[in-house]
Amino acid sequence: MTEQYLMDPERQPSFRGVERAAQKIASILPATPLLPLDIDGTTIWCKAECLQPIGAFKIRGGWHRLTDLTDEQRKYGVVAFSSGNHAQGVAWAARELDVPTTIIMPEDAPKAKLENTRALGAKIITYDRMSGNREQLAAEFSQKTGAVVVPSFDDPWIVEGQGSCGIEIREQMLALTGYQPDQLVICCGGGGLASGTALANPDAKILVVEPEGWDDMKRSLEGGAIVPVGDNPPATDCDALQTLSVAPITFNILKDRNATGISVSTAEVHHAMRVAFEKLRLVVEPGGAVALAAILAGKVGLGDRTAITLSGGNVDRQRFAEIIAGG
Amino acid sequence: MTEQYLMDPERQPSFRGVERAAQKIASILPATPLLPLDIDGTTIWCKAECLQPIGAFKIRGGWHRLTDLTDEQRKYGVVAFSSGNHAQGVAWAARELDVPTTIIMPEDAPKAKLENTRALGAKIITYDRMSGNREQLAAEFSQKTGAVVVPSFDDPWIVEGQGSCGIEIREQMLALTGYQPDQLVICCGGGGLASGTALANPDAKILVVEPEGWDDMKRSLEGGAIVPVGDNPPATDCDALQTLSVAPITFNILKDRNATGISVSTAEVHHAMRVAFEKLRLVVEPGGAVALAAILAGKVGLGDRTAITLSGGNVDRQRFAEIIAGG
Repeated sequence: MTEQYLMDPERQPSFRGVERAAQKIASILPATPLLPLDIDGTTIWCKAECLQPIGAFKIRGGWHRLTDLTDEQRKYGVVAFSSGNHAQGVAWAARELDVPTTIIMPEDAPKAKLENTRALGAKIITYDRMSGNREQLAAEFSQKTGAVVVPSFDDPWIVEGQGSCGIEIREQMLALTGYQPDQLVICCGGGGLASGTALANPDAKILVVEPEGWDDMKRSLEGGAIVPVGDNPPATDCDALQTLSVAPITFNILKDRNATGISVSTAEVHHAMRVAFEKLRLVVEPGGAVALAAILAGKVGLGDRTAITLSGGNVDRQRFAEIIAGG
Repeated sequence: MTEQYLMDPERQPSFRGVERAAQKIASILPATPLLPLDIDGTTIWCKAECLQPIGAFKIRGGWHRLTDLTDEQRKYGVVAFSSGNHAQGVAWAARELDVPTTIIMPEDAPKAKLENTRALGAKIITYDRMSGNREQLAAEFSQKTGAVVVPSFDDPWIVEGQGSCGIEIREQMLALTGYQPDQLVICCGGGGLASGTALANPDAKILVVEPEGWDDMKRSLEGGAIVPVGDNPPATDCDALQTLSVAPITFNILKDRNATGISVSTAEVHHAMRVAFEKLRLVVEPGGAVALAAILAGKVGLGDRTAITLSGGNVDRQRFAEIIAGG
């Protein structure tokens, strides 16, 4: 692919782009395991993205984007906004590639995410989640410094990079079972992982899962046009999925695929975290457990070709202990 | 290999036997991941055996042993004694192979281990850990029913089967880094995993780690002859490592390799469980965290060719929550 292709401001993510991302990512990150889980006699396949070095799939998009920066762009560095997992993904790639990085993070992000991002060498600027406009803060920083903005989902590289997870799911499931997934149940904030994984699996049925009240992708898919979260959404501990609006780039892919939206309650999410703890011995954060929550709540028709994402595992110790001890 | 070879009562585990076990196990169980962990700038490699379907490496020995039963033996079934992980390993293999199984378990085994073993279809007989003699109970049961005794470590199949973990470590580390491990730090109860992994890596330095007061392999290696744990050992939550004496079959392998014994405190084990939680997003049980505990406590000289085992992740929810929230 030519540099001109990559610089096209109208560039859309594609299957070919996802395959290219998957190749780049396979060269630096071993595939996370696809683990079987028995659900009342049916085996589903769980993609353990919480086992990535930064504890979430976001390392994929960060790596794909930053490795495609020009030499000129690398000098000025990058700026990203994120509640924590994208922050760590970008910071990890930036450290590997020696690119200066600034991350704009909500001041109420989990401590683990703030600390890990700082430990990776990124500069952090905090803002108030409900009153601050993170896109605007990033744009201003970019204008002032020349840094390239790396959005957390509204970007063709990010969608393609996250889609590499879907390529791995397909290949691993084929190797383990002899067939490809016919149904993918995917955690959804802005829809980067969901749309990328959908591109990677053109024949699979796509279901995207969000926390109740933050289910704007679900409502957008049902209405046929983007609907933002709206004022006063309920409290949720799925901090990774608190996006106030999805983007055309992710929405259009999922709309074209007739994706189905599902929402899950906090109690359902916590139950899923306990099941992941007991049956898979994995630490899954609330936002990373929504797809499993939808399955366990009986909101998905199950066959034996279903794969789901466990998208992240960055959760503060005290919080995890409270959730695990409950129920 | 001939059936005669397998029926030899004096058979000793060998490198060739470990390789054979590894082939058999690779055909049914995907390799668990070997995850990097940064320790003050040095990367060590952590074998995540807690991600096995039963949450522990014991599935390896169970599979290797039960697949070598004769048709006649299969009919009478097997009997095993175990605090829980070996129980689940044998029960898992027995379910896959449709072999009747009875497990003799201490009545104070973690609930998770008792429940999971029962869920796999095994019959369970409980006994008192300090007063009952589990070897004798198993021998009596075997005489009465004709069931084959499957010991948890004092058996060539079990040592070879667990050693398949060491073959995977070697191959994965070579693929990930270009070199083989030169040092292996291994969790040790009866020494099945430790001696098998040592056989699989003939050129590596071997360190075995036990809980304080239950460090009979350490004391045996230091004295040159087997020393049992002795009366009134201290309380420990490393239930998987509470063996009252090691066996000649495991001890002799480790002695021949000049293995070093290390012991760790409960506080060091709990700290390791918190680090595995935060940095690897893994649920590791106390007994599965002793090798990491030894590393974090500075008890092992570190180079960048060190691999360790995280040998299991079966721990009750309440107990895990207490440990994770502390410190």
